[in-house]
Amino acid sequence: MKNEIIVYTISDSIGETSQKLLAAVTAQYPDLVFNNSYRFSFVNKEEELIDILRDALKDKAVVISTLVDNHLATVANDFSRQTDLHYLDLMNPFFEIIKSKTGFTPIEEPGIVHKLDKEYFNKIAAIEFAVKYDDGKNPQGFLQSDAVILGVSRTSKTPLSMYLANKGYKVSNLPLIPEVPLPQILDKVEGQKIIGLVCKPENLSRIRSNRLDSLGLSNSSSYTNLERIYEELEYSKLVFKKHNAYVINVTDKSIEETAYLIEKHLKNLK
Amino acid sequence: MKNEIIVYTISDSIGETSQKLLAAVTAQYPDLVFNNSYRFSFVNKEEELIDILRDALKDKAVVISTLVDNHLATVANDFSRQTDLHYLDLMNPFFEIIKSKTGFTPIEEPGIVHKLDKEYFNKIAAIEFAVKYDDGKNPQGFLQSDAVILGVSRTSKTPLSMYLANKGYKVSNLPLIPEVPLPQILDKVEGQKIIGLVCKPENLSRIRSNRLDSLGLSNSSSYTNLERIYEELEYSKLVFKKHNAYVINVTDKSIEETAYLIEKHLKNLK
Repeated sequence: MKNEIIVYTISDSIGETSQKLLAAVTAQYPDLVFNNSYRFSFVNKEEELIDILRDALKDKAVVISTLVDNHLATVANDFSRQTDLHYLDLMNPFFEIIKSKTGFTPIEEPGIVHKLDKEYFNKIAAIEFAVKYDDGKNPQGFLQSDAVILGVSRTSKTPLSMYLANKGYKVSNLPLIPEVPLPQILDKVEGQKIIGLVCKPENLSRIRSNRLDSLGLSNSSSYTNLERIYEELEYSKLVFKKHNAYVINVTDKSIEETAYLIEKHLKNLK
Repeated sequence: MKNEIIVYTISDSIGETSQKLLAAVTAQYPDLVFNNSYRFSFVNKEEELIDILRDALKDKAVVISTLVDNHLATVANDFSRQTDLHYLDLMNPFFEIIKSKTGFTPIEEPGIVHKLDKEYFNKIAAIEFAVKYDDGKNPQGFLQSDAVILGVSRTSKTPLSMYLANKGYKVSNLPLIPEVPLPQILDKVEGQKIIGLVCKPENLSRIRSNRLDSLGLSNSSSYTNLERIYEELEYSKLVFKKHNAYVINVTDKSIEETAYLIEKHLKNLK
């Protein structure tokens, strides 16, 4: 089939970098089918590598590799030059630039990006923090947070918190409901650490309807009512103003995009 | 300084792919300092791009780009060839292979990898699911889970659940405590969906001590007592055996590595 492309990914560790690149590339081809079921992780023997490359050649596949072992990378490079296999090495061109600039060579230790160092444990702690202080469960956590995310229901507070936690930020969040008084402790949080999320009312109503559908609930509640949503959003904007929050309009933004803005804002505070 | 290297990353979207590659590369150079503060996102004008490239040249930086706009990518390529700037284009070599194999060209739409499609909303739902059903909070969620993670305290159940949720899996987890009866609903969950985590007792004791330290608590409790930990682990192994769980030893494994094993196991079930 001409509109299908088979991709082999080869790594001497998990192979996350290839997957990330592949996701970015495939998104650019909505009409092309990428068959990405050939994912080879923890490859560390020459014979194993050559078997994979032979199969890739038979399948007319594109091969992406992130091998850090110099010998294996050379084997794969030589093989693909001799056979015209479509082969992309993501790591070695970078290694070569670094060598030419500094003389340094890689330590060639697979999987070391996942090493259990201080940064790693900070990230784990941040994830546990975000779960613990999600949804206003314990406002005491606001004071230890790098960011406190506020917004009415369905403005993506929870997934945003988890995404930022995965980058090592300690994040808590609080749903804003006009009838529920704000926890007093919020007054003690610096405004610059408070992130306020707003969204176009029509989009919010649609998202809430989908949410109710997915929960098997009826759709006639005030939860999806536009007038009520306007009221909630107005209230939230007053809260943001009072607390001097950094406000982001999340309409049509992905979590990654909103998180990028928050990260940039937090970095500017330092 | 010879042991410092300046890296510029340029993207017409957020630039996550470059960051991922950069993390994998820098891990290979423990003695080299990477200055990665020059991160340029949402670059979409030629003049802006050229200004950045000129600065990079002055800084003797390495430039990594993930520009999907063909015109911009060509401008950057030409500039670097004319100036000997160290430049790595992550996307275009892949685009060229695809063109030669299929004739297809990329749609050149920046940020489309974050598009708000069904897959995206499934991921968001999975993250909310994992937060809702974390820590055995509501065992009813077990039946809707793709995986139910069991383990004694500090075997990384929560961060693992969040990591897998970020890949779209609906995951719940339950801490195992010998004195606390298991929720009956666990009997209704297929064994293959149950993931049991074990860890070397000595490591677990150390992790728990660190945990108590970070909470400012004293360290003399049974929580870090080796004998008690043996007892807990023995109990957990009995539970895993009874429920026919897929058991993973997480000692010295990162979340990414354990998650990789779980994902592989879940894919084999399909």
